[in-house]
Amino acid sequence: MSVSKNTARATRVEEYLIKDEPYYEPVGQEIAVFEAAYRQQLPVLLKGPTGCGKTRFMQHMAWRLKRPLITVSCHDDLTATDLVGRYLITANETVWVDGPMARAVRTNAMLYLDEIVEARKDTTVVIHPLADDRRVLPIEKTGELLTAGPEFCLAISYNPGYQSVLKDLKQSTRQRFVAVEFNYPSAALEKKIVRRETGVDEAMAERLVKFAGMTRNLKGSGLDEGASTRLLVHAGKLMAAGIDPRTACRTAIAEALTDDPEMIAAVNELSSSLF
Amino acid sequence: MSVSKNTARATRVEEYLIKDEPYYEPVGQEIAVFEAAYRQQLPVLLKGPTGCGKTRFMQHMAWRLKRPLITVSCHDDLTATDLVGRYLITANETVWVDGPMARAVRTNAMLYLDEIVEARKDTTVVIHPLADDRRVLPIEKTGELLTAGPEFCLAISYNPGYQSVLKDLKQSTRQRFVAVEFNYPSAALEKKIVRRETGVDEAMAERLVKFAGMTRNLKGSGLDEGASTRLLVHAGKLMAAGIDPRTACRTAIAEALTDDPEMIAAVNELSSSLF
Amino acid sequence: MSVSKNTARATRVEEYLIKDEPYYEPVGQEIAVFEAAYRQQLPVLLKGPTGCGKTRFMQHMAWRLKRPLITVSCHDDLTATDLVGRYLITANETVWVDGPMARAVRTNAMLYLDEIVEARKDTTVVIHPLADDRRVLPIEKTGELLTAGPEFCLAISYNPGYQSVLKDLKQSTRQRFVAVEFNYPSAALEKKIVRRETGVDEAMAERLVKFAGMTRNLKGSGLDEGASTRLLVHAGKLMAAGIDPRTACRTAIAEALTDDPEMIAAVNELSSSLF
Amino acid sequence: MSVSKNTARATRVEEYLIKDEPYYEPVGQEIAVFEAAYRQQLPVLLKGPTGCGKTRFMQHMAWRLKRPLITVSCHDDLTATDLVGRYLITANETVWVDGPMARAVRTNAMLYLDEIVEARKDTTVVIHPLADDRRVLPIEKTGELLTAGPEFCLAISYNPGYQSVLKDLKQSTRQRFVAVEFNYPSAALEKKIVRRETGVDEAMAERLVKFAGMTRNLKGSGLDEGASTRLLVHAGKLMAAGIDPRTACRTAIAEALTDDPEMIAAVNELSSSLF
Amino acid sequence: MSVSKNTARATRVEEYLIKDEPYYEPVGQEIAVFEAAYRQQLPVLLKGPTGCGKTRFMQHMAWRLKRPLITVSCHDDLTATDLVGRYLITANETVWVDGPMARAVRTNAMLYLDEIVEARKDTTVVIHPLADDRRVLPIEKTGELLTAGPEFCLAISYNPGYQSVLKDLKQSTRQRFVAVEFNYPSAALEKKIVRRETGVDEAMAERLVKFAGMTRNLKGSGLDEGASTRLLVHAGKLMAAGIDPRTACRTAIAEALTDDPEMIAAVNELSSSLF
Amino acid sequence: MSVSKNTARATRVEEYLIKDEPYYEPVGQEIAVFEAAYRQQLPVLLKGPTGCGKTRFMQHMAWRLKRPLITVSCHDDLTATDLVGRYLITANETVWVDGPMARAVRTNAMLYLDEIVEARKDTTVVIHPLADDRRVLPIEKTGELLTAGPEFCLAISYNPGYQSVLKDLKQSTRQRFVAVEFNYPSAALEKKIVRRETGVDEAMAERLVKFAGMTRNLKGSGLDEGASTRLLVHAGKLMAAGIDPRTACRTAIAEALTDDPEMIAAVNELSSSLF
Repeated sequence: MSVSKNTARATRVEEYLIKDEPYYEPVGQEIAVFEAAYRQQLPVLLKGPTGCGKTRFMQHMAWRLKRPLITVSCHDDLTATDLVGRYLITANETVWVDGPMARAVRTNAMLYLDEIVEARKDTTVVIHPLADDRRVLPIEKTGELLTAGPEFCLAISYNPGYQSVLKDLKQSTRQRFVAVEFNYPSAALEKKIVRRETGVDEAMAERLVKFAGMTRNLKGSGLDEGASTRLLVHAGKLMAAGIDPRTACRTAIAEALTDDPEMIAAVNELSSSLF
Repeated sequence: MSVSKNTARATRVEEYLIKDEPYYEPVGQEIAVFEAAYRQQLPVLLKGPTGCGKTRFMQHMAWRLKRPLITVSCHDDLTATDLVGRYLITANETVWVDGPMARAVRTNAMLYLDEIVEARKDTTVVIHPLADDRRVLPIEKTGELLTAGPEFCLAISYNPGYQSVLKDLKQSTRQRFVAVEFNYPSAALEKKIVRRETGVDEAMAERLVKFAGMTRNLKGSGLDEGASTRLLVHAGKLMAAGIDPRTACRTAIAEALTDDPEMIAAVNELSSSLF
Repeated sequence: MSVSKNTARATRVEEYLIKDEPYYEPVGQEIAVFEAAYRQQLPVLLKGPTGCGKTRFMQHMAWRLKRPLITVSCHDDLTATDLVGRYLITANETVWVDGPMARAVRTNAMLYLDEIVEARKDTTVVIHPLADDRRVLPIEKTGELLTAGPEFCLAISYNPGYQSVLKDLKQSTRQRFVAVEFNYPSAALEKKIVRRETGVDEAMAERLVKFAGMTRNLKGSGLDEGASTRLLVHAGKLMAAGIDPRTACRTAIAEALTDDPEMIAAVNELSSSLF
Repeated sequence: MSVSKNTARATRVEEYLIKDEPYYEPVGQEIAVFEAAYRQQLPVLLKGPTGCGKTRFMQHMAWRLKRPLITVSCHDDLTATDLVGRYLITANETVWVDGPMARAVRTNAMLYLDEIVEARKDTTVVIHPLADDRRVLPIEKTGELLTAGPEFCLAISYNPGYQSVLKDLKQSTRQRFVAVEFNYPSAALEKKIVRRETGVDEAMAERLVKFAGMTRNLKGSGLDEGASTRLLVHAGKLMAAGIDPRTACRTAIAEALTDDPEMIAAVNELSSSLF
Repeated sequence: MSVSKNTARATRVEEYLIKDEPYYEPVGQEIAVFEAAYRQQLPVLLKGPTGCGKTRFMQHMAWRLKRPLITVSCHDDLTATDLVGRYLITANETVWVDGPMARAVRTNAMLYLDEIVEARKDTTVVIHPLADDRRVLPIEKTGELLTAGPEFCLAISYNPGYQSVLKDLKQSTRQRFVAVEFNYPSAALEKKIVRRETGVDEAMAERLVKFAGMTRNLKGSGLDEGASTRLLVHAGKLMAAGIDPRTACRTAIAEALTDDPEMIAAVNELSSSLF
Repeated sequence: MSVSKNTARATRVEEYLIKDEPYYEPVGQEIAVFEAAYRQQLPVLLKGPTGCGKTRFMQHMAWRLKRPLITVSCHDDLTATDLVGRYLITANETVWVDGPMARAVRTNAMLYLDEIVEARKDTTVVIHPLADDRRVLPIEKTGELLTAGPEFCLAISYNPGYQSVLKDLKQSTRQRFVAVEFNYPSAALEKKIVRRETGVDEAMAERLVKFAGMTRNLKGSGLDEGASTRLLVHAGKLMAAGIDPRTACRTAIAEALTDDPEMIAAVNELSSSLF
């Protein structure tokens, strides 16, 4: 059991600053739109499938705009209290501890709520006053009303491919955001990314990208999603570590995409035709 | 981790006072009705779609009536305790901390419960004694019975377009309120608002308002809601920051309204015909 | 944040005494029945639609019988603990704090549980030993067994028009009560009430009562309920503050009754024919 | 707010002793069976409709067997912890506080769990080791294993008329009990009870019993249950306080039985034919 | 309110030792199989209907193997924390308190989880590391990893007759156990048990066993289960206390088995033909 | 009640080191793939039925890579807090206690989340930042951002045979992992395992493996799963302890697989044909 004293510390904002430029290949005007929204103090919503670079884009923008990046992965059990903050009892006094949202407002950080539609409704609502032109965060438990500075920036993301009626963003939430759509990069761009991230040669990168395209065509015909760029990188990395291409594609791509024995066989067959 | 001592402080009501007149263009008799209800000590219910100015109206009325404005965004996990207040343990004593509702009554503030139908039933019921001619707030946990002064004012809002049977206001709640309906402003008024808020020229503002009207006609034919005035302001602000009109409309309006690829294409086509 | 010390205080029963006679117009034998039940130590159940005077009747009876009136608005999240009481930790000792039910028994008050069917089942059950001839309140957490004095009085209310199978009172609960039904007053009586509460003249009061009758006829044909006496009072008060009758009826009555655009139009048309 | 110190006190068992013989008219062998089960240390289950005397019977048996009677009204939110006991933090130490079940075992009391089927499943299961020949109560939180003395007695009750599949007692629970069925008393006996409890004369008692029989025939044809003996007593008491018989029957019986306007009219008509 | 200090005590394992041989009549190889599983450190699952001796068997095996027996009746609200242990705050320090599972591992006891399918899923999963060849109990809250000694023994039970799809044991749980099935004893054996436990004569015991057989034939034709051996013992004990056989069978067997009036009548008729 | 002081201790990582080589027979390239993923810092997902060696494989890899192995059995009630850590109040200070996930990151351990699909969604999401190339664990409650060293390794497992739509891994989770499928070993290999683990002779091991194959053919025709290798080991161990083969197969295999009387009979018949 590791134990650390709960002493008052200054917010360690430097921990959240990204020092080196994260590698990111733009696919459209997403960087310009994000910067315009940032200058106009409008919050941004990123939409797109898993593994196509939303998280990397946020790291890149945080580096580019020199803002600390505070990321929260949303889920069913994340409460407004978890986001805003809570009282904590210590031996000598009761202290208030900021959650990531209050911390981000106080430090003029970039706050990124990943997979927002997975959050409970109270999480979604708690961002409303921060996400319109009031740009305030009322902390009901302390009676404070934090006002966000011009450098504070709010971004949220989700994958519209998964949404059900139950897990849709309310209009009163989504109409507060400028929305940027993400998708898989072009073949040429994706090949470049795979080579740079894994070190495989051009021919292998090309075959991986071709293979990805085949699986993406199966979306809706047995697969929930096709292979993302991330999966190609995984396969490339396994090959770089000495695993043969077919085994790499089976474990990093086919088995990662689905549990359905017939679909796994189909994807493996596609892989056999290429590697 | 930022930490602040939990020492007794006077209610910082001045934080909630709105110093400068918030820009608001009346569309009907809403200001007169609100003032009459306020003078007669009747609570007010604002109905209308998202982004059509309900929050701005409340800020305007709070400024006009010189009342501090305490806003609560309602949601599923907001409890009566969150609203009324709770006991908090400190090292030396247990202190009672008012929630926004008790704080509003004690400071003769304007209490605004946004999206009331999202609240849990106990939140809805806890306002009953404040919302009829008793105008009291019983605090069961302390045994106190707060009586609201004549300047205290209660307002709630919701969007009737979203209501399902499950999320309807009970008759015993709604029959306690004077109800004012909000809607999109007239084209002329909306153009004026867009110009003032974004700085785009008259021709562009006119095209944006025309575009908004087209999307509002799609409500119920694929869109849950049309573009609100707020979305027009977003698009105008992106243009003011150098983004071309089509990209601005796509990211600030089309993608913000829906995730359906066909509807996005349809809305983008409307935009292409205008910009 | 307003903060108050949690020191032991005597129950402030005088706060709950009603000093001035609340205006109440009897519509039947409800006062005699209530007094008989009170003398025989039988609990009372009030049934009737919202806004027809149940709460006012309780205030009147509390004044008449010179009992402090402790009212609890029931809801889904009200626990037996909220009603009976709880332990509270302070710096020097753990103290027991009575909830409204224990407080009412100890002070021989009139305990009124409003909208009892909205309560959780445990709230309903916790009143059983108080509501039969045992007239005791066992406080399981302290091991105390409070015996109600002859002046203690229990009343509950609900609106039978809303009940679904899920929200029905159990026979084992309802068969413990003497049940009094409430309804809208006669036209003559209602006119008298509206005049006295709002100050509008006789002609206007008559038209308001006529209008109310029209909306009550729409109950079940598009409206969940017709306009209650309370809504007429609201409209009258808006008129008294200078709002024209049609706007007063639209905001205080039509929009308060329903969100359905067609029903609102229909009710407004009825109003146009009268005002 | 009334406040009492949480100091260690001896269990005040005498509070739960019933000093005067509670009036009870036996309808069958229930007294003999209960006494036999008590002598053989078998737990007892009472079945029957509301208001037919189960609670009074328990009070009578507790008086007869000279045991303190600890009654718990079961409900959805009653936890095993509520029944068994919990730790309580005070300023100087953490103390264990017995719940009613542990208190009953330690004081050799009669423990009566009313409406057991309303309890959560954990409440039902927690009685198993007490309800078979082990007769022990393991207190998991303290590691104690309480053994019940020969004078401890466990009884539970429910109304089989209400049971749904969801709210049935599990076979592993019910097969631990000797089960005694209760029902309405014979007309002669019921007349005797009504007279003794209300003071109405023989003719009126006879008419009330006749009226009760009529409503019992409506069970299943619009009424969930007929009028219990308790309701007759209520009506008689209202008459004794000066309310005319028809009003007494309407408020104490018809309105207490149902909210259905047609059924109320039907029951009132029956009443008019008799009174 | 009985109160006891929360001071550190050695685990009182002797309380859980069974001193006298519990009466148990084996019906098959269950004793040999249990002993083999115990020697091979395999956990055991007991299956069978209520009242057929599973609990008595565990008491017998605990006595035979000289292990303390720690029994937990499982239910919906039993958490992993309840089983494993929790931190408890006292005035001077925070202490860790073992739950029954950690207590059993530390004292090399026999841990018996009764009606395991009633437990929440986390209870089921928390036994996995103890129930395979790792035989460890990780205590996540303290970081401890308890290793069970060779004398520790785990047994669970349930009634397969009740299982629904929702309340089935997962294969990953059940495939960790050696499973022993229990059923009603043979007529000769059951007669022997009834005589020994109640003192009724041979003829009466024979008639009771015959009666039980008749009810067991009704299983699935109106009865959920037939009369268990335990119910015969109850009836015998009531007779021994002077209750006539028919009343004893009605209250101890017929009414204990079902609430259905027709089934009760049918079972009573069977009883009339025998007694 | 065993009680231990909550004093600060260094993380006892050595407890989680596996000293002796765990017996494991590879069935494919799983060891090479795991090692490549480990070197490339990619997390691994193990898929396969219960009892086929996933847990043993993890123990083997932990031994082979000389990493402490921290295993968490996932379930519905495991919270993100349980995994990451929590504040704990002591007499003198409030201390932070790492959960298994933070402990694993700090000690460069191998973290194994068994049956991940049983976990709540928040458990699944909390691993996202650790499972992609960020390899960080944000601890929202303390504001810390733990960065995993190159020796930290994350693995998860589940049984795809059980998955329902509700309990599927989200694509955004599964596309973060390299996935290795497990299955029953070949007959020759399984025979070798059974002999080594139980000590039964070759002929008996062969018959057990044959028997297992028969039950596996019944999967989907009445059995949810066939007998795993673990069940064969159980049966062999019972035989080694003197139980006859048919009883051993009935209790260790047939009754462990199913509660359906017909299926048990069918499996026992298969067993009779072999033993």
